[in-house]
Amino acid sequence: MNTTELIFEQPLNEKIRSYLRLEYLARQLDNNLQQDHQHRCFYPLFSLCELTERCDYRSEVIKDIDRQLIQLQSWQQQDDVDQQQLQYYLEQFSHAREELQRPQRPGSQLKQDRFISALRQRFSMPGACCNFDLPQLHFWLAKPWEERCQEYLQWTSHFSSLLQPISLLLQLTRMSCEYRDAVAHAGFYQGDSQQSLSLVRVKLDAEQGCYPTISGHRNRFAIHFVQFEQQKHSDKTVKFLLATCG
Amino acid sequence: MNTTELIFEQPLNEKIRSYLRLEYLARQLDNNLQQDHQHRCFYPLFSLCELTERCDYRSEVIKDIDRQLIQLQSWQQQDDVDQQQLQYYLEQFSHAREELQRPQRPGSQLKQDRFISALRQRFSMPGACCNFDLPQLHFWLAKPWEERCQEYLQWTSHFSSLLQPISLLLQLTRMSCEYRDAVAHAGFYQGDSQQSLSLVRVKLDAEQGCYPTISGHRNRFAIHFVQFEQQKHSDKTVKFLLATCG
Repeated sequence: MNTTELIFEQPLNEKIRSYLRLEYLARQLDNNLQQDHQHRCFYPLFSLCELTERCDYRSEVIKDIDRQLIQLQSWQQQDDVDQQQLQYYLEQFSHAREELQRPQRPGSQLKQDRFISALRQRFSMPGACCNFDLPQLHFWLAKPWEERCQEYLQWTSHFSSLLQPISLLLQLTRMSCEYRDAVAHAGFYQGDSQQSLSLVRVKLDAEQGCYPTISGHRNRFAIHFVQFEQQKHSDKTVKFLLATCG
Repeated sequence: MNTTELIFEQPLNEKIRSYLRLEYLARQLDNNLQQDHQHRCFYPLFSLCELTERCDYRSEVIKDIDRQLIQLQSWQQQDDVDQQQLQYYLEQFSHAREELQRPQRPGSQLKQDRFISALRQRFSMPGACCNFDLPQLHFWLAKPWEERCQEYLQWTSHFSSLLQPISLLLQLTRMSCEYRDAVAHAGFYQGDSQQSLSLVRVKLDAEQGCYPTISGHRNRFAIHFVQFEQQKHSDKTVKFLLATCG
């Protein structure tokens, strides 16, 4: 019996949307360090290059860090707060803030890497990283995995000043809200909140055979459950867990 | 000590160029059936969709099959030919020819698949297959690998009528030429041939630390060896194996 628990998240503002996208890519980078996916490891790296060239996320992240630092510092006087964990976050955020204030944009140095640049030009074309398109890639892929791993780690490290604080910020966002039972009648659920929301989380069992499509903005959101096999709206009663984060 | 043997191939005409590209994608499909690369398995599938939509390779392949069939049949009378192997190729090509004459273009049916279509729209965007972009993908990835494998096999089978004969044709092309010793002085080698060439193959040991960049057309080709670490032209004497296929 399949009892896989699935978590679906929907950002309700642009900032969290960007954060989730960058976090998703960060997880892929990690995953590519755990297992040899050959040339496939370059896709998230190049996606990060592209996103960070289009938009400089640093000022937004620094603003968020500052907001968190004020919040965390205000908790230092409270007895019912885990001071050790608090200290951990304070240190992490202070360090991350420093790293983000370096003049160079995260990932900008990768542009100078000729190997990476040659690959990147090709990767967006369909089937265009053949042997004859990119003999250097073919050469690189024949290197021992440990060696490639080290090089990959170095390339990805260009983004860590950005990706690490985003991971922490999302961690705190997720920790700020708890799951509660919810029921979608005829596959539909609507929710609202006095407080402005940033993230909706839905947890459900894969054996229900459906996934949620969530839409919404700040104070109001709607969830439609879709039957995967039929690829159409579910008319069933769907029990799930719901968390709404401020 | 690293004694990995590397093979680099350069097509010398457009047809072989397409064949090699399609073969490269076919190998990736196979590879994605051997190992779970999660969402990464869709990249070669969508590349194949795109290439086969841009160009209908079938008539070119049928022409090539017919040429091979005539050649193979002419060998049926010869004693010094392995008749069993000959029979194998004759059957394979005859079958492939039939398959290719079906009215529908390979892969065209995949367009009707809503799941595949939704994914394909998103995959070309950087980092755009997040949880919230494609909840259906998230659902699919949580299925057991065996189940996903079966579905993947079914999607990829839409292209097999095209990919199988191409694999056979390239097999015969590669079998038609043998490697011989060659030396590139100061990292450079030039070759020519009376007979029109379609494919140049270079085999060398990875420990030489370089890869070939090959250019050419029909009767003439040049090989420049590039030092991988320095990403610049090698001025060394490079010993390699060379095969030139008609």
